Amino acid sequence: MRYGVVFVLLVLSVRGDYWADRDAFIKEEASETVGGSIKLSEKEEKVNRILMQYKFREMDAAFQNSRNFAPGQHFFQARRLIEKSEVFRLIQTMPKGALLHGHDLCLVSSDYFYALTYKENLYACSSNGNLRLKFFENGRQDDTCNWNLLNVLRIIDPSYDRWLRSQINLYTAHPKQRYPNINDVWGTFQNMIFAVVDLLTYRPVFEDYFYQVLKDLYDDNVMYMEFRGFLPRLYELNGTIYQPLETIRFYEDTIAKFKRDHPRFLGARLIYAPHKDDNATIQSSIAVAKAARKNHPDFVIGFDLVGQEDTRFPIIAYLNELKELQAMGMDFFFHAGETNWFETKTDFNLIDAILLGTRRIGHGYAITKHPKVMKIVKERQIAIEVCPISNQVLMLVDDMRNHPAATLMAHGFPIVISNDDPTFWGAKGLSHDFYMAFMGIAGRTDDLRLLKQLALNSLTYSALSKDEKDAAIAVWEKEWESFIDATISRHGNEIPH
Amino acid sequence: MRYGVVFVLLVLSVRGDYWADRDAFIKEEASETVGGSIKLSEKEEKVNRILMQYKFREMDAAFQNSRNFAPGQHFFQARRLIEKSEVFRLIQTMPKGALLHGHDLCLVSSDYFYALTYKENLYACSSNGNLRLKFFENGRQDDTCNWNLLNVLRIIDPSYDRWLRSQINLYTAHPKQRYPNINDVWGTFQNMIFAVVDLLTYRPVFEDYFYQVLKDLYDDNVMYMEFRGFLPRLYELNGTIYQPLETIRFYEDTIAKFKRDHPRFLGARLIYAPHKDDNATIQSSIAVAKAARKNHPDFVIGFDLVGQEDTRFPIIAYLNELKELQAMGMDFFFHAGETNWFETKTDFNLIDAILLGTRRIGHGYAITKHPKVMKIVKERQIAIEVCPISNQVLMLVDDMRNHPAATLMAHGFPIVISNDDPTFWGAKGLSHDFYMAFMGIAGRTDDLRLLKQLALNSLTYSALSKDEKDAAIAVWEKEWESFIDATISRHGNEIPH
Repeated sequence: MRYGVVFVLLVLSVRGDYWADRDAFIKEEASETVGGSIKLSEKEEKVNRILMQYKFREMDAAFQNSRNFAPGQHFFQARRLIEKSEVFRLIQTMPKGALLHGHDLCLVSSDYFYALTYKENLYACSSNGNLRLKFFENGRQDDTCNWNLLNVLRIIDPSYDRWLRSQINLYTAHPKQRYPNINDVWGTFQNMIFAVVDLLTYRPVFEDYFYQVLKDLYDDNVMYMEFRGFLPRLYELNGTIYQPLETIRFYEDTIAKFKRDHPRFLGARLIYAPHKDDNATIQSSIAVAKAARKNHPDFVIGFDLVGQEDTRFPIIAYLNELKELQAMGMDFFFHAGETNWFETKTDFNLIDAILLGTRRIGHGYAITKHPKVMKIVKERQIAIEVCPISNQVLMLVDDMRNHPAATLMAHGFPIVISNDDPTFWGAKGLSHDFYMAFMGIAGRTDDLRLLKQLALNSLTYSALSKDEKDAAIAVWEKEWESFIDATISRHGNEIPH
Repeated sequence: MRYGVVFVLLVLSVRGDYWADRDAFIKEEASETVGGSIKLSEKEEKVNRILMQYKFREMDAAFQNSRNFAPGQHFFQARRLIEKSEVFRLIQTMPKGALLHGHDLCLVSSDYFYALTYKENLYACSSNGNLRLKFFENGRQDDTCNWNLLNVLRIIDPSYDRWLRSQINLYTAHPKQRYPNINDVWGTFQNMIFAVVDLLTYRPVFEDYFYQVLKDLYDDNVMYMEFRGFLPRLYELNGTIYQPLETIRFYEDTIAKFKRDHPRFLGARLIYAPHKDDNATIQSSIAVAKAARKNHPDFVIGFDLVGQEDTRFPIIAYLNELKELQAMGMDFFFHAGETNWFETKTDFNLIDAILLGTRRIGHGYAITKHPKVMKIVKERQIAIEVCPISNQVLMLVDDMRNHPAATLMAHGFPIVISNDDPTFWGAKGLSHDFYMAFMGIAGRTDDLRLLKQLALNSLTYSALSKDEKDAAIAVWEKEWESFIDATISRHGNEIPH
């Protein structure tokens, strides 16, 4: 009956000091956190004090008045608050390692993307109320739609541009009203991809776009990327259409060019990720996957299936095809558990991802509801690619403090922070998502060690080979040192004692 | 590099059957869930098939269109959907065991509470825009406020009643607009308690009210209660004021009367739970606690501190006082971690609750972020009192599927479902909260075994003595059998094969 009392008396008699026990308890928990075992150097400690001074100031103001608390608000409201934050500015300058979860057509900033709509020869039309964009040589439009030159539409109709923006960005001042439920926001999101695919797959734009993808990351101090892509067919104005495997060549050329221009950038690799569609599409995707992997083993690192999980077939629907890929040595990086529908086909994707030996899990939002999946993920160090802003915009969670990654973080799970599809909600690089993770998902006292570990995790859990990884980490460590030095020299006079 | 593939090939070569492995994986996880080890009798299986037919129908419709999904919506919208649900109606008839977390002044239905405002001699006034209610004998009002007879105010001002309702119920059609942040809703909530305290502590009303508290539970098939109460001073119209310890007598008399009228009801006991206020108040509360425990050891089972955790002193502020109580053998049932502010003083209440040997934890909303607390809670079987609707209305979580209790449930933690303060949001008994837990927090396939375990847990984790507990469980088992039989005879023709 009184074991509680007995326990406390026992503790008090053995240790004799409640406060020491309490302190030890808190420290023991903190040591389990992601980054909890990192020892900071003296210089890093200085930067940590600067960082935490900013974090405490911001968080404690928000604790008093949650209107100041960005991670408790929808990103569309939060963004302005974030971009005013000193913590955010520090995160921007921090070398964040690699982006491990992002989708081919949605990776640049919204501003860059919007600027693309001013390109010459770009035509637009509305199909069932949804935008389509495509390049044509004068007078040679196809007859699938009532195409008009976009720049002319802009001049003719003063309200056109506002509509255009609404078709290429999920932004709205009132997300809950605009998207009453998750299928509404996903529907709009998928229409956006449909709207932009022919804009981006025009070969010259594609190369510029992809160059800019790398530039956005580079500018945000991200040095490497493993991205999901479905190898779209690129086209030229003269009617030439390239096959999926040729798309790889354009990727490789653009990456090579970017690396020549920016020698510190380490490159980008592809997780081939076609849509979960009908069986016929999957069959041809499997053929592409095999050829891509066989012919470009250094660039094509693995396979995934994409599309709104709840409304599509589960992974397991393609077991035979996936086994074929496995047999040829393809690695899997499955999206799984991007849902809050517990014990549904979507949710069970987590189990199939594990049984199929996935190397990482995309989102894994539902994972804390799966004890055995959690156990295996920790044992085998299968990284969870956490995409905070995506999960919020695509309506799995409102307040970041309720994001299940808080549990993963506190229990020391292998996680990385990713941005998923930043174009469509106005994030740029990884910093907005890092901010949400650091200020909204992590605890108040989680500090520079967490950020450092998240950056390191992104390299550790990448698909780089052992040697490549060691080299990448060595480069990253140098950048980290520069970041530490630069921060001290910039903020040295603000270091609290 | 290819350990994923190796693993799968290994599994396939040993077992040879992906589908069997998958099935075993799912079953292993399911066996860990709360209720996962229960074996249902043949008759229970029949009821389970009825229940799950309803559950699947409802949930799968909601999966298609989340507008139909009550646990994804605010309770103020969800209530109508819930009350139309066949699952809810089954839950209402189910014997649910005990209520282990509810507060003295907020336990009846809103309708009963509203009806109290028609009592004779009830005066009302507005103090700083907030309602106050109090009984006076004609012409003897105090001068703390501009008192008027409530029934007269109703006649004079046609809009008065609407305002009155807004002062005694948090209901609003637009919760997010009405309560932009958590402190707004807590402020309003605390004003409501302030408004009603003098209505309820008029001795005859107090007795009627408390009788109705028991009746609401009894009607909802709840047989026992351990409630938090602050032992308010009751008064008579003639000016008599009773001391806190005398309030216990009124409780005991009312319980005795209710048990005479309803022999199957097992009673109610008090966790003395004063507010976390200034030190002076705590000192006098500690004195009351000691005397109450000493003089009424069978009724006063323990101690807790209440009030919005975020804005008040943490438990640890009263360490010395709490040690005094411990020394005299007082059990603790602390509110702790009713917050989403991770690693703050509120959040660390979880650690102090554990170190102080708490027997149960009120809310424990933040617990999944605390690995060591989780470990201890499971080892020592410290029950978590989960209050789903309260956590939603008081703005910790929007969508029940994000409630951390889903993780606790899936990992087989000792949890009970409670209602906290149903008066102020229009719930009644335990059924609304059970519904939210069963349909929103649990998984799609969690079934009658979960409900049975939750009911059993409420007795197992009560403060009843071993003998009392055995007796209570025996009574409950009989009621459960009646429920099973009645359900079969009522729904027998609907049992799916």
